[in-house]
Amino acid sequence: MHSDISHIQDLIKNYPNFPKEGILFKDINPVFRDGKSLDILGNHFFDKFHNVDVDYIAGIEARGFILSTLLGLKFNKGVIMIRKAGKLPGTTIKQAYGIEYGTAVMELQSDSLRIGDRILIADDLLATGGTASAAASLVEDLGGKVAGFAFVIELSSLDGGKILRERGYRVHSMVVY
Amino acid sequence: MHSDISHIQDLIKNYPNFPKEGILFKDINPVFRDGKSLDILGNHFFDKFHNVDVDYIAGIEARGFILSTLLGLKFNKGVIMIRKAGKLPGTTIKQAYGIEYGTAVMELQSDSLRIGDRILIADDLLATGGTASAAASLVEDLGGKVAGFAFVIELSSLDGGKILRERGYRVHSMVVY
Repeated sequence: MHSDISHIQDLIKNYPNFPKEGILFKDINPVFRDGKSLDILGNHFFDKFHNVDVDYIAGIEARGFILSTLLGLKFNKGVIMIRKAGKLPGTTIKQAYGIEYGTAVMELQSDSLRIGDRILIADDLLATGGTASAAASLVEDLGGKVAGFAFVIELSSLDGGKILRERGYRVHSMVVY
Repeated sequence: MHSDISHIQDLIKNYPNFPKEGILFKDINPVFRDGKSLDILGNHFFDKFHNVDVDYIAGIEARGFILSTLLGLKFNKGVIMIRKAGKLPGTTIKQAYGIEYGTAVMELQSDSLRIGDRILIADDLLATGGTASAAASLVEDLGGKVAGFAFVIELSSLDGGKILRERGYRVHSMVVY
């Protein structure tokens, strides 16, 4: 509902020049600090994806862990952690992705999912789509299918949403700038 | 209930020599990947802390974000993120804590809570108690009160639980080794 979107949007706070000069940081902390928002987020995304078959919710470290947990409870499915490299034990697969200067690496445990499992990927914010694309590669490299992407915030001028949708992914962002 | 504890305990996986030689890593990933466990965790900790007044749940980055979200929904309270330094915009307070070699720093937004707010601190694992103590200091430095600590796993031989309890904190760990 529109009022739900407004409730979330009103809580998102702007911080100019964070983490560096020229970047307008959208702070989602006040959203998660609001108990009502946690309910709204879970219900909103369940409504958007309830007709999609989902086996697991994958959360992208670190803020994505919160949305993925909200969705895990709503869908009654487990949560998979897609983590920054070096934090997961056992056999893993890795995927590099571009960041502002150079590259970073994300990692997923190889026994996180089985071939054919459908994974809904959750994160707080979609910007260029670099981390989201890397997350999708990890899921697909293990034989999983991306059931969709759920983001609280999308920065449409950075084209991440356009890129993901052009590749055929189902993407829903609750608040779009 | 005992069967709930067994359900969680049976899913925790041991990885010897991770992240380094001589450390037996307790992997909680299979717990969070299990939808039933998410319900069990929320209910278990709500049962243990439902008679405590709580205004917010604080999650310690990064795995603590998952348990804090489960508890936020059960208590119908918002989630505060206690983060590694450099990730939070606005006015913050910082607290150093000892890690194996040297120190690390955790950070909390100064407007996360008001004086007198009661904060339940959640994390996946309690070992030496270094991060937990730093989290408590952050809450108390802002004038908040620690309502308790919730951990999925406690490694009792490392004395973190002993130290926190001797300081008068209410601590509940679901699975104790």
